[in-house]
Parts: sequence; C-alpha cells; structure tokens
Amino acid sequence: MTEIEQVAARLRAFAAARDWESFHTPKNLAMALAGEAGELLAEFQWLTPEESASLDGEELGRVKSEMADVATYLIRLADILGVDLIDAIHTKMTEVEIRYPPKA
Amino acid sequence: MTEIEQVAARLRAFAAARDWESFHTPKNLAMALAGEAGELLAEFQWLTPEESASLDGEELGRVKSEMADVATYLIRLADILGVDLIDAIHTKMTEVEIRYPPKA
Amino acid sequence: MTEIEQVAARLRAFAAARDWESFHTPKNLAMALAGEAGELLAEFQWLTPEESASLDGEELGRVKSEMADVATYLIRLADILGVDLIDAIHTKMTEVEIRYPPKA
Amino acid sequence: MTEIEQVAARLRAFAAARDWESFHTPKNLAMALAGEAGELLAEFQWLTPEESASLDGEELGRVKSEMADVATYLIRLADILGVDLIDAIHTKMTEVEIRYPPKA
Repeated sequence: MTEIEQVAARLRAFAAARDWESFHTPKNLAMALAGEAGELLAEFQWLTPEESASLDGEELGRVKSEMADVATYLIRLADILGVDLIDAIHTKMTEVEIRYPPKA
Repeated sequence: MTEIEQVAARLRAFAAARDWESFHTPKNLAMALAGEAGELLAEFQWLTPEESASLDGEELGRVKSEMADVATYLIRLADILGVDLIDAIHTKMTEVEIRYPPKA
Repeated sequence: MTEIEQVAARLRAFAAARDWESFHTPKNLAMALAGEAGELLAEFQWLTPEESASLDGEELGRVKSEMADVATYLIRLADILGVDLIDAIHTKMTEVEIRYPPKA
Repeated sequence: MTEIEQVAARLRAFAAARDWESFHTPKNLAMALAGEAGELLAEFQWLTPEESASLDGEELGRVKSEMADVATYLIRLADILGVDLIDAIHTKMTEVEIRYPPKA
C-alpha cells in the first residue's frame, strides 16, 4: 500500500467504527474540506507574506494541524469517489505545464 | 522517493522554470488552496447529497480536476514549509481518534 | 423598504420566476457563498498587499463582481433564515468591541 | 446615511481606535471574509438540506454570528475599495437575469 492508501484505510476504519459513513457524502466532504481550508487561511490572514514565510514553532504547529485536516478530507473524498489523487495531480500538471510554457 | 515527494519535486521544477517562486509564499499558497477548495465546492453546491454520490463521467472529471488543484497547492505549501504531510495526518488522526472514541 | 430588503425582494422574485426555490436551502446557499468567496480570494492571491490596494479598473471590476456574488448569496440566505443582517452585524460588533478594547 | 454606510462608519472607527488599519489591505480582508465563509460552511456541513432549513435556536444563533462576520468583512472591503455594494449587486443581478431567462 502507498502512503495515501494507508491513510485512506485508516479513515475508512475510523468512519466505520463511529457509524459516520452516512455523513460522508461527497457534498458534505467537499464542505468539510473547504471549511478546513478556511481555517488554514485564517492562520495567515493578518501576516505579511514575509511573516508567513518565517512562522515560529507554535504557528507552524497550528498550520500543520490545519493542513492535516485539509489533507484528511481530500483523501477521504478521493477514496469515496474512487479517484486516484496522485494520478489526478500528474494528469493536471501535464495540462498546466503545456498551458503555461516555461520562460525561454 | 514517495509519491508525494515526486509531486513536490515536479512542482518545484515547474515553479523554478517559470520564475514563479517569489509568488509562492505560504500566505499566497494558502489563498490559492482555499480558492481551489471553493471551486470544488461549486461542483457540488446545487446537487442533493444523493446526486453528489452518483456523479456522471463528465462531473467526476471536473471534480477530479479541482481535487488535483487542491492537492497540488497543499503539497507545494507543505514542501515550502518543510511539513511532512503524511506524518501530520497520522499525528492529527491519533488526536481525533482519542477525542471521538468509537461507539461501544 | 431598506436597500437590503429591496435586494432580498428582487432575489425572491428571481428565484420564483425560475423555479429555483427548492435549490436554495441554507446548506446550498452557504456553499454558494463560500464558493464565491473563493473566487474573490483568487483575484487577490498572487498580488502583494500593496498591489491589492491599488487595483486598476479592470481588476476592480472583477473584484466588484465577485463581491456582488458574495453579497447576493448572503442576503438570500438571510432572507430564507429570517435573519436581519444589519441587526446581526451590530450585535456582533458590540461583542467584538468589548472583546478587543481600543488602545489606551 | 444608509444602513450599510452606518456599518462602514462603525467599522472605520473600530479599526482606527485599535490601530488596525494597516492590517486591512484588500488582500487580507478577502482572506478574512473567506475564512468566515468557511466557518459558516462548517455550521452546515453535516446537516441534511432539510435539517439546514429547520435550525434550532442555538444553531441559528451560531449561523447568525458567522453571517455577521462575513457581512462585516464584506462591508469593510467595499468601504476600502470605494465599492458601492448595493449598486454592484443590482448591476450583477441585471446581468444574471438576462443570462438565465425565466421559465416561459
């Protein structure tokens, strides 16, 4: 199993053990993901770009925790929709690399 | 290299080849991530929960593309902050598994 | 009628004339609002704070249009929930003014 | 003064009294708005559409408070950009009414 498949399996077991599977519709998971993206945003909203690049340990800990929440819902959503995230990323990047050619 | 490290390396090369590195502050990347989470949300906003669980091929293609965008910015942000995403996820899940004990 | 009540009435007529009322659940409207907030965010994501404060006419036009979208869904949601937005704002501001006292 | 102008004036005084004006760049305010939209979203994420339409008093209180936060940042952003929100809404609605003609 890849790292992401291991996370997906842990999330599957987590939801099953709590009877939360019926809450995990793609619609709800997209909402939860966006809500966590909002919390990540809130960590940076009053910082200058420079400050955002030199977080202290406490700030970085909070940012890490919010990033984990976003990642968790993303992997759970992918698992439920049967999407291979890594494959989706590489497909998209190939498109984007063509759309925005490198500087000469 | 893990799958995620491979994506991070591809994103690093992508940004370097276009001189986009100065745009990729954590603050800006968090914004870009949240913007893409908003586009993902938009795919689901008028669907019932049931419809969201039975997307047709075209809808699933759009959802996949938005998920790839979210994942891309998340992996780029993690790379820049020196965050190990998989490790952050497992740390967080351990906390959450304790906070919400399984049903007896 | 206040300005906001006039907008709410126009939105009510707009939804009724298109048979869109059943889509406008609070859940869906909150999603639509957050999706538009994501589009607003996208207008600013690669700008420096300084650039964001000196938009040219074209950029300001796009920002205005996204702000209108956010406002529209917010007023529609308030109408459906029976929330008086202006009253809610003043109630919240009174709390916030106490929570964060002014500098001496 | 209209209701919205009164809120804008209160927010202007609030920021001035706390020396927060330099934090209120359009970029930062767009982030704060999107962060609050994420909190609003979180109130609805595990509810069915039907549940979202019949909130109890406590839930409605939280939703109201999040809506006030979104509205506050939207009005503050409009004030700083010199955007007339009500005018922007009506302009946009005229476009949208044409783009989506009513059912015959």
